[in-house]
Amino acid sequence: MIIQDTIVALATPSGAGAIAVIRVSGKDAITICSPLFKSINGKKLRDQKSHTIHLGHIIDGERVLDEVLVSVFKGTSSYTGEPTIEISCHGSTYIQQEIIQLLLRNGCRAANAGEFTLRAFMNAKLDLSQAEAVADLISSDSEASHRIAMQQMRGGFSNEIKMLREELLNFASLIELELDFAEEDVEFADRTQFKDLISRITKVLKRLIDSFAVGNVIKNGIPVAIVGEPNVGKSTLLNALLNEERAIVSDIAGTTRDTIEDEIIIGGIGFRFIDTAGIRETKDVVESIGIQKTFEKIEQAQVVIYLVDGSLLTGESIQELKTEIGKITNKHPQKPLIIVANKVDKLNDNQTSTLKSEIEGIHLLSAKHNTGVEELQNKLLEFVNTGALRNNETIVTNSRHYDALLKALEEIQKVQYGLDGGLSGDLMAIDIRQALYHFGEITGEITSDDLLGNIFANFCIGK
Amino acid sequence: MIIQDTIVALATPSGAGAIAVIRVSGKDAITICSPLFKSINGKKLRDQKSHTIHLGHIIDGERVLDEVLVSVFKGTSSYTGEPTIEISCHGSTYIQQEIIQLLLRNGCRAANAGEFTLRAFMNAKLDLSQAEAVADLISSDSEASHRIAMQQMRGGFSNEIKMLREELLNFASLIELELDFAEEDVEFADRTQFKDLISRITKVLKRLIDSFAVGNVIKNGIPVAIVGEPNVGKSTLLNALLNEERAIVSDIAGTTRDTIEDEIIIGGIGFRFIDTAGIRETKDVVESIGIQKTFEKIEQAQVVIYLVDGSLLTGESIQELKTEIGKITNKHPQKPLIIVANKVDKLNDNQTSTLKSEIEGIHLLSAKHNTGVEELQNKLLEFVNTGALRNNETIVTNSRHYDALLKALEEIQKVQYGLDGGLSGDLMAIDIRQALYHFGEITGEITSDDLLGNIFANFCIGK
Repeated sequence: MIIQDTIVALATPSGAGAIAVIRVSGKDAITICSPLFKSINGKKLRDQKSHTIHLGHIIDGERVLDEVLVSVFKGTSSYTGEPTIEISCHGSTYIQQEIIQLLLRNGCRAANAGEFTLRAFMNAKLDLSQAEAVADLISSDSEASHRIAMQQMRGGFSNEIKMLREELLNFASLIELELDFAEEDVEFADRTQFKDLISRITKVLKRLIDSFAVGNVIKNGIPVAIVGEPNVGKSTLLNALLNEERAIVSDIAGTTRDTIEDEIIIGGIGFRFIDTAGIRETKDVVESIGIQKTFEKIEQAQVVIYLVDGSLLTGESIQELKTEIGKITNKHPQKPLIIVANKVDKLNDNQTSTLKSEIEGIHLLSAKHNTGVEELQNKLLEFVNTGALRNNETIVTNSRHYDALLKALEEIQKVQYGLDGGLSGDLMAIDIRQALYHFGEITGEITSDDLLGNIFANFCIGK
Repeated sequence: MIIQDTIVALATPSGAGAIAVIRVSGKDAITICSPLFKSINGKKLRDQKSHTIHLGHIIDGERVLDEVLVSVFKGTSSYTGEPTIEISCHGSTYIQQEIIQLLLRNGCRAANAGEFTLRAFMNAKLDLSQAEAVADLISSDSEASHRIAMQQMRGGFSNEIKMLREELLNFASLIELELDFAEEDVEFADRTQFKDLISRITKVLKRLIDSFAVGNVIKNGIPVAIVGEPNVGKSTLLNALLNEERAIVSDIAGTTRDTIEDEIIIGGIGFRFIDTAGIRETKDVVESIGIQKTFEKIEQAQVVIYLVDGSLLTGESIQELKTEIGKITNKHPQKPLIIVANKVDKLNDNQTSTLKSEIEGIHLLSAKHNTGVEELQNKLLEFVNTGALRNNETIVTNSRHYDALLKALEEIQKVQYGLDGGLSGDLMAIDIRQALYHFGEITGEITSDDLLGNIFANFCIGK
């Protein structure tokens, strides 16, 4: 892939604002922009130093399109590693479009999604996992997801992989060298050191692979299903947790037909709350589809909140509730389940203590009066293993990296068996090559156009 | 109004994008930002030259918030005329908010709408009409509105006013000087030259006042009402004109209840199309409110399109149509009215020529098949007097300026009468002062906090 052309795109969000930034990158960026920009001091863009800003007008022949600030990045010192011009213009969508059209007429091409970052990768300004972190950084919406993306962008994760790959590559060369001298039965590669390396690599890979569970939770949020009979206040609870009027709340039982998903950040971690239709048996077709979905949602959720109307819990219904809870815990014994009694503002002290003694760990709450809501949020937070996060460890969040790490581990374990079983060097070399390949996939030393296409298609245009 | 504090705001549109720009302006901008920015080359922001760009990290103590580019503007050479820092960060809304919060904690204040431009005005980087043009420029959405805003921002209009004001001020001083020597009956101000100036000013004011009609059309678009009986294809026509599916189209008569407004640009001029409920008499309460609105819309529109179903026009209904048209032209004799027959694809040649001969100037069209739509657009364009626009004349678009010009003209005419009637210098001086006052209002030499508050409240935050 040889980069010959010069690309242009709006780098700021679309729509009107005070200012907008149009980014031009490529070997001809300065040559193309220079005649279209009339500096107020009369100097040409091409005569300016890198990393300087210039006030002037974007002109289309006689017509003045806008008064702008132009930033000049020369040589390879820009984000993309190519000559780059950034035009900071007035934020009218009309002006943005006119300037971009002018640049397109003058030899630029409209950039594809993520193409600026792709070029940064192609020009070795970033490795592939760092480039991927740029997209994560832009979509980060909590402290935890932001911290991990920053860490990855600054190379924390790929540096570790790169160093292990170097060492492994070194051993691979020695072992392949041995093959050239197969007749003479020499050992260039010290088997003890090699075993030590393989065991270190295994340890690192396992740690990174394990971190993916946490990473995934941080990146995508923890799914929490709220289930219960109709009209116990699921939507009101959701609203209290979300602190806004998102779900439709009414007094008619069975109002919530569709599942409503929304996310809140508790202690820097995202929780995706899934409100579901009631699990009451019903003849209403629409609602029974909803109930089907409820069971699916329990399956998908990492934590389940079973919500009951506390004000209706008499002796008999408490026993019924216990039976219902039993059904869920039988079907999903491993799934964390929180029994929440809503509307407890309607109970007296006596009733409250009966509930507490009958149902172990029941959480009392009034969604309407917003009591017990914060305590519930804290309880949810306890389910998250944020140990790795707190200890600032490297965390894998990208499923592509996770796959490559799993494959690398598989190959490394083959090498391990080979070493243990005295496998011949030529067979072992194949496994090592495979492991090296999967390491290289993470950092981008090994790529294909398909892979790059997939990765950068998920970026926004202008990045 | 003394500017002491340092303000911060997001300057790019809100939402996620590749990058976002956060603007900090005020005497402490560089002092506040310097410790929060760790340059990759270790240099401090405060030691950097103006108009330079620096790569580094925004840090909150130990925590790295983002990798950013920081632009430094020192002294009075920035947009606001104050030290300014622009932080170009990754476009995550989370990161934007974190950086803005960090700056607020470190001594910045959140900027009000238009406050950066207000400061540019207070620091004499722009006069008031230029500052107002900035907001027009940002909201410009057609070639014509963009051209006028650019012209105004570059001072074309206020320069003319300023020069006339200078000359008038000069004469005012001479006349007031005469008053000091009233006993001696001297004339310092040459009355012939003064009359000449007054006549020049009158001419310029009248030209500018006249231009407002065109200016208003260009800035706000030309309102075009589409009326007609239900189900003749108003929404389909609107869609054909808009070239998109904006209005709800159905076969049920009376589908369009609310008026739908949208704008298209024809020949650089914006047209606001107003789709209305049918004008058929009806007992449906909702629809009769719609019909009431139709008559209001005709009142507001500059051009009216009367749309009929061409396929239903038989001998009798043609006569009915003529009566209906008569009613409208009686009520609004001056309002340009275009009779448009839709669905003419269903007519044979004979029927077509009957229609043409019976109803003068009828426009035949098939919105569904998109024939005759472009011709209708051209017909609409003919209603606009774009002469001034083509000749690149100064055009007034701002109703505040228009008011001030009208008031200035009134005072100038009083001066004229005074001159003609030999009014005493002291009375004439009052009228001249009034005229000067209104000139000053336009360029901002005369302002009040209320006036400035009103003007800049219409800006977006960050500009």
